[in-house]
Amino acid sequence: MQRRDFIKSAAAGVAAGAIAAPAIAQSNPTINWRLASSFPKSLDTIFGAAEILAKRVSQLTQGKFNIRTFPGGEIVPALQVLDAVQAGTVEIGHSASYYYFGKDPTFAFDTAIPFGLTSRQQTAWMEQGGGKQLLRDFFREYGVINLLGGNTGCQMGGWFRREVNTPKDLSGLKMRVGGFAGRVMQRLGVVPQQIAGGDIYPALEKGTIDAAEWIGPYDDEKLGFNRVAPNYYSPGWWEAGAQLSFYVSAKDWDKLPKDYQAALEVASYEAHVTMQAMYDARNPTALARLLKEGVKLRYFSKTILDACYKAAHEVFDEESQKNPHFKKIFEPWQRFQRDQNQWSMVAENQIQTYLIGKSR
Amino acid sequence: MQRRDFIKSAAAGVAAGAIAAPAIAQSNPTINWRLASSFPKSLDTIFGAAEILAKRVSQLTQGKFNIRTFPGGEIVPALQVLDAVQAGTVEIGHSASYYYFGKDPTFAFDTAIPFGLTSRQQTAWMEQGGGKQLLRDFFREYGVINLLGGNTGCQMGGWFRREVNTPKDLSGLKMRVGGFAGRVMQRLGVVPQQIAGGDIYPALEKGTIDAAEWIGPYDDEKLGFNRVAPNYYSPGWWEAGAQLSFYVSAKDWDKLPKDYQAALEVASYEAHVTMQAMYDARNPTALARLLKEGVKLRYFSKTILDACYKAAHEVFDEESQKNPHFKKIFEPWQRFQRDQNQWSMVAENQIQTYLIGKSR
Repeated sequence: MQRRDFIKSAAAGVAAGAIAAPAIAQSNPTINWRLASSFPKSLDTIFGAAEILAKRVSQLTQGKFNIRTFPGGEIVPALQVLDAVQAGTVEIGHSASYYYFGKDPTFAFDTAIPFGLTSRQQTAWMEQGGGKQLLRDFFREYGVINLLGGNTGCQMGGWFRREVNTPKDLSGLKMRVGGFAGRVMQRLGVVPQQIAGGDIYPALEKGTIDAAEWIGPYDDEKLGFNRVAPNYYSPGWWEAGAQLSFYVSAKDWDKLPKDYQAALEVASYEAHVTMQAMYDARNPTALARLLKEGVKLRYFSKTILDACYKAAHEVFDEESQKNPHFKKIFEPWQRFQRDQNQWSMVAENQIQTYLIGKSR
Repeated sequence: MQRRDFIKSAAAGVAAGAIAAPAIAQSNPTINWRLASSFPKSLDTIFGAAEILAKRVSQLTQGKFNIRTFPGGEIVPALQVLDAVQAGTVEIGHSASYYYFGKDPTFAFDTAIPFGLTSRQQTAWMEQGGGKQLLRDFFREYGVINLLGGNTGCQMGGWFRREVNTPKDLSGLKMRVGGFAGRVMQRLGVVPQQIAGGDIYPALEKGTIDAAEWIGPYDDEKLGFNRVAPNYYSPGWWEAGAQLSFYVSAKDWDKLPKDYQAALEVASYEAHVTMQAMYDARNPTALARLLKEGVKLRYFSKTILDACYKAAHEVFDEESQKNPHFKKIFEPWQRFQRDQNQWSMVAENQIQTYLIGKSR
């Protein structure tokens, strides 16, 4: 570890020398990149974040650094964006790391783990709580560099054909839910199903599945789930704040002029801020429309939440014991979460809860 | 209104034509700007946001667009930053709009009004809820263009020498609190005092004042208020999320090459994200240290909050009746707040409250 740090420092010294010597090239090169998104254009808040990045980078480089954005499935399968960046098929991707949970559950820290950080806490962890460095160390092994790429905020818990009131009601339930949440719910008898977004509606309608989680009111409304599963549960405890990221091929990153790297990095902040703001501005009116159509808004009971929380922490413990990558991030992450929540309790949550009471 | 829109559209048409014709200049000019901050270097989270902006803009323009940052009072009095931008003394400032409450209470919407938006809601309002446009229209009359410049998150309610339990305890209380909050508290008998940061400690110690609000644990700790006023109240309902902004002289903005404008605009997002993240990462440990030193953490009672809320809305109504600028922004702002809180209640606040319970 110390030896590796030494080598890194030495390399940094050489790089700094190299910059100082011939100064920055007078005329910047024209560079064309392809960005593979995991998301369809219909998820305009998420796909839109990639478009914001591309537009701003072009503007900052006088049109010389062009990033063309492709929706999920167009040039790369939606759930293989990270692999495509790693393989050099595309230079950059926009995805959610927990899609790669199967390779290593450690990936999930870059999006969300069950009962994890809220959107603001996740950003604080990434930027000022050591998260970005921990994740960069992890992603380096996959040849990618991660940049902030938005957040959905707390998601909904999904659409259920029938009410669920106690942990027992979860037993045998066939639910469209993936990755980490699926592994946690299995402990309570849920049978997790992997189903693409477009196939959820017919599966719910026919009763092939009993429940399905998607995102939140703004996106869920478009797919019409309320017509076939009227019970809309909250909160989506497996995604208290689901972060998206841009994944850049480390090899291609290294070839960029420094100011192009800067353009990419700074534009990712704009995409990050704007995506959360888009969700925040659009979810309330979508929820109001859904409620008008007769959707039954329900909350997971405390017994269900507690059972799921317990199961989640059993999974975290097991994973920490067998997976040093996971453990290395989970331990400081958990301390950060505890500190954040203790402070959130004192001011942020007080005013938020009070004001909610006044806006009913 | 419609005529003005027409003129604006026509002007935009001309500008677009001008860009298309001679194309972008091949070599960009060297430009030196001075940024006047309202804040001292000791408020490293806030002053740091201005430094982030300056550093990134320089990096994006290959060192040609330089912004030198000056702490409050160095070249311009701390609370006259907006005036200095308006007068052309400096090209850009970093300040909180509610310092200019005396000119027009409408200014406060760009920072915070009592019982207002949380940090995330404020950003959503600015970026996707119509807030930025409303405020740009307002600031245009002062010759400035506003860019996002950070947020503190919900602040604390301040340091009190004695406990306050009911609205009656506020009557006659001499409190260091300014602007909008001062005007609201006056209705409950508080005597608001304007005292600079460095003079608060001796005033509290001597008993010249009974209470003082500053920011939150990370900044308050540095000034040692706990030694002279041990009751630390929450929440700071007058700053549920206090936003900072960069104020750019519209004349100087118009003279910038388009890609320099883009550099400034995009760098403001990075400063915005980073400042909130710095507060979020540093406040929890500062609060823990304060509690270890014997600080008594207290919460404003519901009767106090309700009395202040009522007084705040009386002030909003009065102001709306006599001030069309205020009314024009307050009405859509209030609808936005109600919608936000109704949605926050459903998911975000549910998971946050649940997780706080688990982190005690």
